This record gives sequence, structure tokens and C-alpha cells, in this order.
Amino acid sequence: MKANVYVTLKEEVLDPQGEAVRRALDSLGFAGVKKVRVGKLIEIDLDGSTSKDAETKLRAMCEKLLANPIVEDFDFELEAS
Amino acid sequence: MKANVYVTLKEEVLDPQGEAVRRALDSLGFAGVKKVRVGKLIEIDLDGSTSKDAETKLRAMCEKLLANPIVEDFDFELEAS
Repeated sequence: MKANVYVTLKEEVLDPQGEAVRRALDSLGFAGVKKVRVGKLIEIDLDGSTSKDAETKLRAMCEKLLANPIVEDFDFELEAS
Repeated sequence: MKANVYVTLKEEVLDPQGEAVRRALDSLGFAGVKKVRVGKLIEIDLDGSTSKDAETKLRAMCEKLLANPIVEDFDFELEAS
């Protein structure tokens, strides 16, 4: 079973990397880019389990390792393999 | 208009960061994690344009700045704001 985990900075946390990308896009001539935020996409390949089990496991993985709950939010999506 | 850009390492490129995450999950007791790949999720807020325009722009942004076409693939998704 495959899962995509999305880890993003919380809305209220500054994102200098995103701001740098926004400026770079601007200086490359891409007008109208109002905001850029850079997060992580973590693709995980899990050994067969039910989707309910997988969800519980993924939530625990995010809370314990993949995301920093102080400054980051997470979300995930399962795809049948 | 909001867009999510997904930048991932090409399948044939080694991902030491992903492998480190896999091992860390394993040593935290999460069994059955076969593979982990770490990529980027870039959230972009674009000034109003049609979705066709936005797609053309996003593709160009990915090709010129957001992804390194030698080792990375990209994909994006538009959401109406």
C-alpha cells in the first residue's frame, strides 16, 4: 500500500524558503505570484495492511517523526497499490 | 488561484534522505515500511488567471526553477480559490 504524506508549515509560521522562491519566480518574469510555501511530500510504501491500520500507523509516524507538531501540519492520502 | 506543485526524485535516483527516514521509522518500531522517498510540496498562490494560463505558467515555473529536470519529476494540481 502506498501513501503520500504532506507536511506543511503552519499558516502562522514564516517560510523564508518559500519567500526566496517567490522572489526568484518574480525575477524570472513570472508576474502575479502572491505567495509561495515550501513543504514536504513523503511517499511511503507500506507492507500490506488494511487501510484503517495504515491510517493509524501513518498518523503515529507523522506525530512521532515526520512532522514537527509545533510548527508543522500534516495530512496524508492512501492509494491502493 | 492556488496550486500545489509536487516535486519528486526520479525513480532511478537514490534518495538517502528517504532511506534515513525509513530506518528511523524502523527503529521507532514501525514495521513493514518498505520504502520512503522524500520530495517537495510547493504551494503557490497565483493572481487570477484562467486555469489554462495558470497551467502553462506552472509548467514553465517547474521547468525553469522549481524542479531539476535531470533528477526530478514534477506534477501539479490547481484548486479554485
